[in-house]
Amino acid sequence: MASKQNKLIKDIVVIGGGTGTFTVLSGLKKYPHNLTAIVSMADDGGSTGRLRDELGVLPPGDIRQCLVALSEADLILRDLFNYRFENGGLKGHSFGNLFISAFEKITGDLDKALEEVGNVLKIKGRVLPVTLDNVRLKAELENNEKVEGEREINKSWLISKLGIKKLFLNPSAKANPKAVEAILEADVIVVGPGNIYCSIIPNFLVNGISQAIRKSKALKIYNCNLMTKHGHTDGFKVSDFINKVEQYLGNKVFDYSIYNTKKPSAVFLKKYSHEGDWVDPDNKALKDKRFVKAELVSSKLYHQSPADTLLERTLIRHDPDKLAKTIISLL
Amino acid sequence: MASKQNKLIKDIVVIGGGTGTFTVLSGLKKYPHNLTAIVSMADDGGSTGRLRDELGVLPPGDIRQCLVALSEADLILRDLFNYRFENGGLKGHSFGNLFISAFEKITGDLDKALEEVGNVLKIKGRVLPVTLDNVRLKAELENNEKVEGEREINKSWLISKLGIKKLFLNPSAKANPKAVEAILEADVIVVGPGNIYCSIIPNFLVNGISQAIRKSKALKIYNCNLMTKHGHTDGFKVSDFINKVEQYLGNKVFDYSIYNTKKPSAVFLKKYSHEGDWVDPDNKALKDKRFVKAELVSSKLYHQSPADTLLERTLIRHDPDKLAKTIISLL
Repeated sequence: MASKQNKLIKDIVVIGGGTGTFTVLSGLKKYPHNLTAIVSMADDGGSTGRLRDELGVLPPGDIRQCLVALSEADLILRDLFNYRFENGGLKGHSFGNLFISAFEKITGDLDKALEEVGNVLKIKGRVLPVTLDNVRLKAELENNEKVEGEREINKSWLISKLGIKKLFLNPSAKANPKAVEAILEADVIVVGPGNIYCSIIPNFLVNGISQAIRKSKALKIYNCNLMTKHGHTDGFKVSDFINKVEQYLGNKVFDYSIYNTKKPSAVFLKKYSHEGDWVDPDNKALKDKRFVKAELVSSKLYHQSPADTLLERTLIRHDPDKLAKTIISLL
Repeated sequence: MASKQNKLIKDIVVIGGGTGTFTVLSGLKKYPHNLTAIVSMADDGGSTGRLRDELGVLPPGDIRQCLVALSEADLILRDLFNYRFENGGLKGHSFGNLFISAFEKITGDLDKALEEVGNVLKIKGRVLPVTLDNVRLKAELENNEKVEGEREINKSWLISKLGIKKLFLNPSAKANPKAVEAILEADVIVVGPGNIYCSIIPNFLVNGISQAIRKSKALKIYNCNLMTKHGHTDGFKVSDFINKVEQYLGNKVFDYSIYNTKKPSAVFLKKYSHEGDWVDPDNKALKDKRFVKAELVSSKLYHQSPADTLLERTLIRHDPDKLAKTIISLL
């Protein structure tokens, strides 16, 4: 439900993980509101996966992206955090991931480590892991096949064909109390955009998070993805995205769902047709007042670093300023 | 020759590399003088050697130790810089080395990178690579045998037996202009303690450095090592150390040579007898007024990190406060 408060400076909680959340935070950072990012801890692929396996740390990758988005340090320091080593035994590792993981090893406490990293990066706001438990994302498909690990689920081509019977964390996880508190005290909660099974919903699988979101009096906004993801959300319309997310939240919680009406250029669409298709706005079906339309596609094409060999990244993205402006217009 | 200046705040240049220089800087940092560390760039062993080979960067290890010594950042950030990864593909890498190397890759310029790292670590003073050329240390022994690389020379057991015919950098290197300027403008130059062939003399092999030291009007102080190093300086007396260093400087340049008179405990000496022996002060031979005696052995035993598997480290060290106090008493 929408907040009754009329504060000028709002407490905004952004929930997600991955590049979608990076985009939202980058845009919202330019406004005077207080930002808290709550980040999925299910990532186990790429540089993050290797660090989890080899060092026994919690996954740093999504946290790093949020920290960089909120950083007000010199550009060069933000570049450093995103820098990927290109050769030898370090190849593919993001420097920022090593920074977070080394700090976690020293402090023995990711939460404490994030305070320190936040100081170095001069971040505006906070980044909170949704849980401090060491979890893995698992899926049971409708044909009873099991897919283990976020990386494997991310690559799976069977989900949209077969459907997911059960998506869960193993072991089960308790919420970071700071995350619950932030949700309950928020004036605004923003969810997405992002890979729904791998970045968004894993947050709601942590015990206590969905309950807190349902209970929170914040204004709740869902940002629909620009593109489907082959194997996951083939054929999804705008309404399918929010319905799927709300299914895991246990209720129709969102006051608004922001969706894009601008079709990316044919060149972009062709170049990335192996990843997914444009989410057609399907306007007639979106008469419900909670659907808010805007032209949100970035005119820039994201270039993947040549060193970024460990994962594929979404290459058609929201324009952070346009998305933030649309969110702010709803407050 | 001693400076005629009577400034209260002196410009002190410390030349070396390795843990000896870390110790000097840690002690001198507590005084109000301006510190500049000039650091050997011949290191090619351990974490540093792997980074040089794999990433094509200049050697970060000695620089890192100086940066940490001069840092006024929170202890936890200094701990982070010295943290060594303990598992997996990162095992043995010092985080600080990765930090410096990643910054060098981003800026394409080690000097610029060090400014940025210095800001993060809030260093008091400056750390200057003696050269920005990519060099390797090489030795030709008296029997014409060649030893290539600082790591190999460091491990060689033949040097004190056969003697070095020629110690040189390949390719030859030109001095970092900032280092030359610092030497020429210094009020005080402090050299050592440290491994003479691997940490101290490589600085003087860089074209322009010895000349600048000879020309500089600074007060010049040499800190003699506490211990010999088997294979390198077996049987060396206090006077042998300074004579060997001055041989490479091309002149008797030092106004003072500080040496230790306190014998480490029998337990310490036994434990580290595989590394070297105590440098007996040999007082009768040290009547020359430039030899300055003091009790300088640290009562603490340095503990090597279990992750620090790539190199052996000197385990009997100077007390930084006692050494600094002795240096300051000469100004």
